[in-house]
Amino acid sequence: MPDAKIPLPSVRRFPSYLRILLQKKDMGDKNISATQLAEELGLTPIQVRKDLASTGIEGRPKVGFSIDELIGSITHSLGWDNLTEALIIGAGNLGSALAAYNGFSAYGLKIVAIFDKDLDKIGKNVGDLVVQPVDRINQYIRSNRVTIAVIAVPANQAQATADMLIKCGIRGLWNFAPVNLKVPEDVVLQRTDLAASFAVLSVMLRRKYREETEWNDDEEVF
Amino acid sequence: MPDAKIPLPSVRRFPSYLRILLQKKDMGDKNISATQLAEELGLTPIQVRKDLASTGIEGRPKVGFSIDELIGSITHSLGWDNLTEALIIGAGNLGSALAAYNGFSAYGLKIVAIFDKDLDKIGKNVGDLVVQPVDRINQYIRSNRVTIAVIAVPANQAQATADMLIKCGIRGLWNFAPVNLKVPEDVVLQRTDLAASFAVLSVMLRRKYREETEWNDDEEVF
Repeated sequence: MPDAKIPLPSVRRFPSYLRILLQKKDMGDKNISATQLAEELGLTPIQVRKDLASTGIEGRPKVGFSIDELIGSITHSLGWDNLTEALIIGAGNLGSALAAYNGFSAYGLKIVAIFDKDLDKIGKNVGDLVVQPVDRINQYIRSNRVTIAVIAVPANQAQATADMLIKCGIRGLWNFAPVNLKVPEDVVLQRTDLAASFAVLSVMLRRKYREETEWNDDEEVF
Repeated sequence: MPDAKIPLPSVRRFPSYLRILLQKKDMGDKNISATQLAEELGLTPIQVRKDLASTGIEGRPKVGFSIDELIGSITHSLGWDNLTEALIIGAGNLGSALAAYNGFSAYGLKIVAIFDKDLDKIGKNVGDLVVQPVDRINQYIRSNRVTIAVIAVPANQAQATADMLIKCGIRGLWNFAPVNLKVPEDVVLQRTDLAASFAVLSVMLRRKYREETEWNDDEEVF
């Protein structure tokens, strides 16, 4: 059981390794060095060696790591060797974009259903799915044994949505609503906040511009 | 200039405050307390008071904060009082989903163009935009004075794409490709990695399940 020891920062980098490894395999490569991986991903070779060591796969001098072994070990560590099914709650802009996004399948995640409470949205097509009414969630989760849900509802509905999903048996929540959810200890919560990321980008950009302006002002004065 | 001092963790929370404040304003409310904001967002009142203090707006005892003043100050601190135009490079699944996502407008971001090098994608509609060939980027940026670009190309093309964008005059990059980009000091870089978020969720969920399984095994043994 190697992954019980793998630090989460390494886990965050595993999907990037996997993508490069699958590309190299497609190109017919058999082995890869930590240095090559580091270059492809803008990491230091030391970091890559540390991350790869946590998979339990050992590299050989002059040969490097077996690409097949690394793919197998990383995929298994992430649990991506089994397809994971997930629901999306909320068929607004973000929920619809996530439901229609095919890229999730690359990491073993399949969005199998999308729900909303808005009568105008129910019945509409989003990607390959049809928006279902929220009052069908409980039955859906119990019939289909889904354990992961993506929350894409407005902030003020997110906690109630999470509570309801957990009652229905959901064990993993991926929250895209801009709110800190409270969940019981046996539920895993991951948050992605696009607005927060953009806020940092906006403010940093303003600061750079202002610094520049101030510096120019100084130049004129002195 | 209050925002030169605002810590980035507070900046990350500003969009969430803004959303609640706009909702309350729509409902006709004039004032709000730090405690109310804290409850809506799952934060501690102490954290909220600290964040709001950084905007320069002061609350009044028993009355709280003026919603209008807070909206004005936060919007201005984020630079969201001016519409920011951005390009998307890469019209694959993620780039297309981001281009079609209307939610960005809520925080002053307007996606004005999307580019790809794939002849099969050029000319296709994505949301309200038409995919343009990458060799038009330079002219587009210079004619339209766009300073922000969203990178949604494959990992192995991301650094070259970033270099090219910076040469064309882009100052802020929002990178969705799973790679650490190297950029000059005067360029602001923000990264969002959906696969990394999901990797952590997957692994944490596996760890919880395994703990449970092990615990059940122990029960049977003892």
